[in-house]
Amino acid sequence: MAKVVVHVMPKAELLDPQGAAVISALGRLGFSGATDVRVGKRFELTFDREPDEVEIRKIASTLLTNEVIEDYDFQVEVTA
Amino acid sequence: MAKVVVHVMPKAELLDPQGAAVISALGRLGFSGATDVRVGKRFELTFDREPDEVEIRKIASTLLTNEVIEDYDFQVEVTA
Repeated sequence: MAKVVVHVMPKAELLDPQGAAVISALGRLGFSGATDVRVGKRFELTFDREPDEVEIRKIASTLLTNEVIEDYDFQVEVTA
Repeated sequence: MAKVVVHVMPKAELLDPQGAAVISALGRLGFSGATDVRVGKRFELTFDREPDEVEIRKIASTLLTNEVIEDYDFQVEVTA
């Protein structure tokens, strides 16, 4: 068994409206000091075998990421 | 400066409709072997100081997580 964790985040150069919303909410709730917030997605995929890197990149880029506005990275954890 | 990464995932015992959608899409695209997929959120918060654990837990539980259906974990990376 293998667990693949894929993180998909908005490209750094793009405005992140969700992040901006969190920053203003932090201010309203009295939390100070936040200078930047970025909001993305975390996928935890469990496989009954260990997928190779090419396959993981294909899954991440074709299915999980909008490569125009997002970047991804991944880690593989082999569990059993 | 400190970067706090908060991961918010659906509670393990709950059905994850987004995850189910990804699994069926994987099958349609010819990727075999996926037994479970869970989809959650990743927040990257940058602070101009190092927030303490109590503050981070308060931010995560009140603002970033719906504690009825989600769990969270976090890591602090001190950068400068």
